[in-house]
Formats: sequence, C-alpha cells, structure tokens
Amino acid sequence: MPNEKTLRELGTLTGSEVRGPGAEAVVITGVGPLDQAGPGLLTFVADKKHRPQLSATQASAVIIPPDIDWDKPCLVNRNPYLAFAKVAELFAPPVPFPPAGVHPSAVVHPEAVVEPGAAVGPFCVVGARAVIGARTVLVAQVFIGDDTQVGGDCILYPQVVVRERIRIGQRVIIHPGAVLGADGFGFVPEGEHYRKLPQIGTIVIEDDVEIGAAVTIDRATLGETRLGQGCKIDNLVQIAHNVQIGPHTVVAAQTGFSGSTILGRHVMVGGQVGTAGHLTVGDNAVLAAQSGILRDVEPGGAVFGCPARPHREAMRLLAEYGKLTEMRRRIEQLEKRLKALEGK
Amino acid sequence: MPNEKTLRELGTLTGSEVRGPGAEAVVITGVGPLDQAGPGLLTFVADKKHRPQLSATQASAVIIPPDIDWDKPCLVNRNPYLAFAKVAELFAPPVPFPPAGVHPSAVVHPEAVVEPGAAVGPFCVVGARAVIGARTVLVAQVFIGDDTQVGGDCILYPQVVVRERIRIGQRVIIHPGAVLGADGFGFVPEGEHYRKLPQIGTIVIEDDVEIGAAVTIDRATLGETRLGQGCKIDNLVQIAHNVQIGPHTVVAAQTGFSGSTILGRHVMVGGQVGTAGHLTVGDNAVLAAQSGILRDVEPGGAVFGCPARPHREAMRLLAEYGKLTEMRRRIEQLEKRLKALEGK
Amino acid sequence: MPNEKTLRELGTLTGSEVRGPGAEAVVITGVGPLDQAGPGLLTFVADKKHRPQLSATQASAVIIPPDIDWDKPCLVNRNPYLAFAKVAELFAPPVPFPPAGVHPSAVVHPEAVVEPGAAVGPFCVVGARAVIGARTVLVAQVFIGDDTQVGGDCILYPQVVVRERIRIGQRVIIHPGAVLGADGFGFVPEGEHYRKLPQIGTIVIEDDVEIGAAVTIDRATLGETRLGQGCKIDNLVQIAHNVQIGPHTVVAAQTGFSGSTILGRHVMVGGQVGTAGHLTVGDNAVLAAQSGILRDVEPGGAVFGCPARPHREAMRLLAEYGKLTEMRRRIEQLEKRLKALEGK
Repeated sequence: MPNEKTLRELGTLTGSEVRGPGAEAVVITGVGPLDQAGPGLLTFVADKKHRPQLSATQASAVIIPPDIDWDKPCLVNRNPYLAFAKVAELFAPPVPFPPAGVHPSAVVHPEAVVEPGAAVGPFCVVGARAVIGARTVLVAQVFIGDDTQVGGDCILYPQVVVRERIRIGQRVIIHPGAVLGADGFGFVPEGEHYRKLPQIGTIVIEDDVEIGAAVTIDRATLGETRLGQGCKIDNLVQIAHNVQIGPHTVVAAQTGFSGSTILGRHVMVGGQVGTAGHLTVGDNAVLAAQSGILRDVEPGGAVFGCPARPHREAMRLLAEYGKLTEMRRRIEQLEKRLKALEGK
Repeated sequence: MPNEKTLRELGTLTGSEVRGPGAEAVVITGVGPLDQAGPGLLTFVADKKHRPQLSATQASAVIIPPDIDWDKPCLVNRNPYLAFAKVAELFAPPVPFPPAGVHPSAVVHPEAVVEPGAAVGPFCVVGARAVIGARTVLVAQVFIGDDTQVGGDCILYPQVVVRERIRIGQRVIIHPGAVLGADGFGFVPEGEHYRKLPQIGTIVIEDDVEIGAAVTIDRATLGETRLGQGCKIDNLVQIAHNVQIGPHTVVAAQTGFSGSTILGRHVMVGGQVGTAGHLTVGDNAVLAAQSGILRDVEPGGAVFGCPARPHREAMRLLAEYGKLTEMRRRIEQLEKRLKALEGK
Repeated sequence: MPNEKTLRELGTLTGSEVRGPGAEAVVITGVGPLDQAGPGLLTFVADKKHRPQLSATQASAVIIPPDIDWDKPCLVNRNPYLAFAKVAELFAPPVPFPPAGVHPSAVVHPEAVVEPGAAVGPFCVVGARAVIGARTVLVAQVFIGDDTQVGGDCILYPQVVVRERIRIGQRVIIHPGAVLGADGFGFVPEGEHYRKLPQIGTIVIEDDVEIGAAVTIDRATLGETRLGQGCKIDNLVQIAHNVQIGPHTVVAAQTGFSGSTILGRHVMVGGQVGTAGHLTVGDNAVLAAQSGILRDVEPGGAVFGCPARPHREAMRLLAEYGKLTEMRRRIEQLEKRLKALEGK
C-alpha cells in the first residue's frame, strides 16, 4: 500500500504555508522531477529561473519559494529544496537490507561483538574483537578487520573493505567497493630499490560521514587519517595517509588528497581536484573542479586552475588568455607602425 | 586441440581477397601483433605508415588494406582492423565461466528468477524478485539487489555490485569491481549540517553496453540514470545521478560526468575528462582527454582544455601560449625603441 | 607483551652512531611522528629544516642526520628516513592474516595448487590449474581465475580480483579492490556499432611490485601488460592493455596510462597524470602531477602541464602567464604613446 499524505500534512511536516484552491486536501503519493512528475506527485522549484517550466508541470502540487507566484496547490517555503528533501524521505522506497542478526553464511570471529539489532549479511567477514554497532547493517560481502569498531546505525553496502584497527562513528554510510585502511603509499629509497615504510597508523571516521563507491582511504603511516563529522565524500576519491578532513566538508568525485593534507571545516571541493602533500586548506574554502592545489589555501579562499590561483585572478587570466592572438596582432601592428615612424 | 583455419576459410569469414603464393592453403592457428607474431599466426597492418614493420614479420600471413603491396600470403580487406577482430574472435581462448545453474555456495532469494542456461557463480548474492536472464553469467562474488533485472547473455565479472531496482539489457558486459546503483551525491544544507536527499531513482543500462572495472554509476535522485545502446565505458569512470548517455558513445578511463549531464549518440570522450552538471553534449561530439567541460557542446563539436574551448581555438591559443616569452621580449623592444624615438 | 629494544640494539640494526647521555641503555618500545611521539618512542628528523620542531619532542630518542646538533639520546645516520623504516618494521603491529591452509568456506578448484604455508581466506575463489605460491596469503573474498599463477610470499588483500592466465611474481602486495586482467578497452567500428576486439593477452607482474587499492590493470589485447620488478603503484591508477612499466617505477594515485604506453626504469609519476597511448617515457623521467603527456619523454626528462612541456619551460611559461594582464597594459600604453608620436 503506497504512502499517502495530504498537502496539509506535508505543510506541517516541512513548516510550509499551504496555498492554492483546495490545496489542504490534495493527496500526495510521491515525489518527482519538475518535468516528469504526474498527478499525485509533489515537485519543487528552488529558483525563480525555473519558473517557466512550472507552468507545464503535471504534478498535483509544488513547493515554491515566496518570490514565485503560483495559483495552483502549493507549499510555500523559504528553502524549497530542504522541504522537498523532507517529503522525499517520506516517500522513498525502503532500501532492502538483510534482517537483524548474522547470516548463516557470514564468517564472524567468535571474539567479535555484533550489537543488538545489527545485521551481518551473506559472505561478510568480521574479524577478532571487531565491534558492529547496534542497528548497523553490513549488507553483504563486507570485510571488517580485527579490532575495527563500527558505530551504531551505520550502513556498509556490499563489498566494502575496512581493514584492521579502524574506528567508524555513528550513522556512517559507506557505499559499495570503498576501501578503508589500505597501507599508505610510503617507500624509502634504498639503493636501486624502494623499501616499504610500515603503515602502522589507523583511520578515524567521525559520525554522520558518507563515503562514496570505490573511495580509497589509506591508513596513516603513524597516527591517524581522520574524516570529521558530517563529511560527504563522493565516488572514486583518494584520501592518502594522514589526511585530516574537517567537519561538514564536501568532496566531489575523483578528487585526490596527497599525504598529510589538512582540510578545514565546511570546505567545498570540486571533482578531479588534486592537492600536493602537507598542505593546509582553511575553513570554508572552495576548491574548483580539476584544480591542482600546490600551496596552502586561506580560510574562505576560492581557488581554481592548475596550478590553482585565487579564483578571481584565475578568471581574469583566463580572459586574457582567450585574447592572446589579438594581443600578438597588436604587437605586430605596433612593430610595423614604429618601424614606419623610425624610418622617417 | 588448437583451432586451425586455412587462409581461404578466413578470407571467406572476413570477406577478404586471398592473395600471395600458396596463400589459400596456408594454415593459421592464431593471431598476434605485427612485431611478435610467429609462424602459424595471422597479423594485420591497418595503415600504410606501418608498412616498414611488415617486412620483418614472422607471421604466416597478414591482413592488409588494398593500398599496401605485399607479395607473401595475405588477406586484402578495406578494413583490416575489423577483419582482424573477426579472426581474433575465432582463436580467442574461451573465458572460463562457471557452469549453468546456481553454485551451491550462492545465496539466491527464493523469489528470484534465474532463467535457463544462466550461471550464478560462487558467493553471489541475488535479491528478492531479481531476474537473471537466460545464459547470463554472474562469475563470482557478484551482488544483485532486490527487484533488479539483468537481461540475457550478459557477463557480470567477479565482485560487480548492482543494487536494487535496476534494469540491465541484453548482452551487457560488466567488468570486475564496477558499482551500479549507489546513491547519487545529493545533500541539502540545513544549518551547519547537510541533510541527505533520498536517492529514489534507478538506472537503465540498454543492450550491448560494456562497463569497465571499478566504474561507478549512481542511481538517479528521481527518474533514471541511463546508458544508451552499445555504449562502451572504460575503467574507473564516474557517472553521477541522472546522467543520460546516448547510444554508441565511448568514454575512456577515469572520466567523470557530474549530475544530470546529457551526452548524445556516438560521442567520443577521452580519458580524465570532467563535465560540470546539467550540460548537454551533442551527437558525434569529441571531448579531448583531460578536458574540463563547463558549457554545452554542440553536435559534432570538438573541444579541448580546461576550461574546454573549441579544439581549433584551443590549439591556436596553446601555440600562442608557447611564445609568451618571445611576446614579452617584443614588448620590451617596442618600449625601448619608442622611448628612444620619444627622446628625440 | 610489547616489543622492547635498547637504543644500542637499534643502532646496530640500522648502522647508526648512538649518541647522547645514557643513550645506549635507553629503552624503545615503538615509533611515532615528531610532534606526537611520547616517552618510550623513537622518532626522526630527516632534514635540517625540521630542526626547530625537534626541541619540543617528547620522544625518548630521535634519528638525526650528521648535520644536526642534538644533545639528547639519538641515533646519527646519513639516511634517517631509511633507518626509521627499519625500526618501524620492528615495532609494526602484525597485520592479521588467516592461518595457513584453505578456509572451509573457500572454493578452490580441485586442480588448483595451494603451496605449503599459503593461506586462502574465507570466500576466496581459486580457479582450475591456478597456483598459490608458498606462504602467500589471500586474505578474504579474493578471486583467482583459471591458470593464474601467484608466486610465493605475496599478500592479496580482501576483494582483489585476478582473472585467468595471469602471472604474479614473488613478494607482490595487492591492496583491496584492485582488478587485474579485465579486458583491455578495444573496439572496432562496424557501421553504427562497435565490435569488441577480443582481449586475448595476459599480464605479468614481476617480483616485489606493490599495487594500490582499486587499481585497474587490463590484460593485453595480444601479448602482455607488464609491471617491472619493484614497481609501486598507488590507489585508483588505471593501467591499460599492453602497457609496459620498467623496474622500480613509482606511480602516484589516480594516474592513467593509455594502451601500449611504455615507461622506463625508475620513472617517477605524480598523481592524476594521463598519457596518450603508444608513448615511450625514458628511464628516470619525472612526470609532474596532473600532467597530460602527449609525446615521448626522453630519459631523465622532467615534464609538467597539459599538454606537458619540459619542466623548466613549463615553469617559465606559467610565470609569463601570471603577468598577462600587465603585458596587455604595456601594449595599451605603447599604443597610446605611439599614437601621440604619430600625431606630431
């Protein structure tokens, strides 16, 4: 039986004003995108610039900001995107998880602790003295090394690997194929060869972190690699040994942080960014996509390019760059005219 | 017993003219590269520029285009590379797959459907109401979520993850470690924190798609992420939520498409390319390796650089860039000469 | 019981001079970083520039180079980093591995060979005629295809995939999620479609190679993809079909080598580098991070940028680039002054 809510109920849930003819009684059974949502569905417009598409929507209701006029059933909210997220949670189909308890096929060490309500799915391996927190789910084929602690209410999707002696907080989500705790990339030249520097350290993942698919987070050489509370890491990101990421920092896909990079709080990192090692990026900094960061970035700084420069300077130089041919021609003109003048 | 074919048989198979002394009866037992293929093997030269290496080959026969002269046994074909591919198929050692049926170690939900001739290898997990199409192979340690449908004649290599409610067509090949259906990267700021936007949508993979190792394809926020018929995706590519890729588009390794990017048909994408979100790339466009695509690309357009510019403009500007020092010196000269002139 | 060594013993082990009051008898129980190591621990300073931090250390002893003065217990060594690596090995906590033998849950083909002292962990799959060398460990959930040979004293971490017919040498370490032997990315246009070129070749990994997490190494189209002795490959690197990497070459994370690239010995490759296919990079070359290599690099060459140029030229052009606005203004000045002069 599908979920059903009246627009009035959703107004209360999201703290929105309910507006439009007969709006309060409109029944909503799901959510959809502006251009595809049909009858029964709720959609949203976050910004005035999408107002034109609104007229064509088939959705039964829409969440709009106060500065959009609309004479059909709607919820008016200063943050339509956030209100929509809350409604979407209500109608999201449940993700199928294994039931609480240990699947008969799983290999759980007798000295491991699986707390109440936790689920250990098929073909999982849980090492000695590892702890799987209450209500945490290891969906399937997950590897948890010895002495690793996973907090409560976490989700570890299929084929996540967390090696030994790592600490993961509460409500952490780790997507399929992510690898936590591989050796940091540390070698010491010894004649022709490289000698492996033992990677003795660990990783700490704080509460409410989300880690994308096939992300690799290396254990520290000594000490710890740390992801602060509420960090969100997209797919295929590389986090080297001893990297420290502050709380609520967001990192887009395929970015790589070299060893011992320190990122502050609320940093925004675009996709395919690379940083040199041992850098410090301040709180609230913004690193644009594909940038190559070779120096520290100050708090609140915005940088772009490879090597990265302050955003404004980078944009200015790009504009100049686009006129290089014109610039060369002006030089040629000057040379001609000067020659003519000199000839006189 | 190794496979054996006469050059005559291979001429018929590939639609080639058989030429050279005693050519028809030459027996071929395999294929090899031009510089390594020895007696019994067939090799090819696709382009006149490799003609010099041909003289040194030890191969028993060679596939050549009509514009190359060669007086030893050969197949003449307008498309030597394609002819070679057809012969290579004949001699390729079979990839070892588990036999049809469900391996005793696999965990297949009683409500899942495994169609005739399909093989579910060791340690695979197949969810409720999932369908594994006829003659499809899950090699080993594959995860298939609830309600996911995999068409017929597919190959899913070890440790592929396909989460719930995803549709995969016929003859799709997915290489090891690929992850389909992880949550899109969507968060809504809520005070200091980010609130997770539920990722409700799905993925559709059309027929004849090939997906590389450790590729990540996220499910749509709402609606679907879609890969069109015959797309070929290389290793470690990131495909974000709601990306749409047209038929027969080819994407090289480590490229990333941000959310809601739309790519047309027959687009060629180099390695390590990144696109901003919500872009449209037209049919037959070519995105050069390492480009950063910040704007729409028109059908047939070719772009390069970060930020990407039309290929011709990008090459022109690079040439100017290479002469920047010379340009500065010319300015200095102008300044000196002008000063001298002004002094008079 | 923790490991304990006197500084005298460690001096002998590392070939260092033991210096400082009562130094020989100082007992060391572990290692730590300069700023965090407390009593009982040994730390190191590799370079004079970190001398200031040394004064504040709480460590019981420190490894220093001869050109640093220090009046507390220390080991003096010309290569403090290498000496430290040797001591760290001594104190590194052992990585937990499954015991020798085949875990009852593993699926090992009756025709596979598991040599003495080798360990095959839970949920591993080992194919027909595969060989797992003496004392080699497959930690868990590893896939080894038919006819693949893994040498002695290797470590394959959880969820490594090695497909069929691949040869791995002695003492090779492969981190979680790495994929060896997926099909090379080879397709031949055939009308509207692409026809798959069979990937018949193999991979050879020589002795003492280390391969990072989620690295993808494709099998050769024909012939072999090869990683030379002692290569170190960081996480998420893409190595395409037929790539040849010379001995002791080091590759940082997220780099990608296109098909048939040849790298020499002792090459240093930064992170997020990309190479075009069929290139040759000479011995001891240095490819800076994020570079796009479009041409051959000579032995000992250092290149940077996209497209990559010789390092010196690249740095010079970047410096010019930073002055583009100034350059444009100088042109404007010249134009004004010239006009004034012409007007006379």
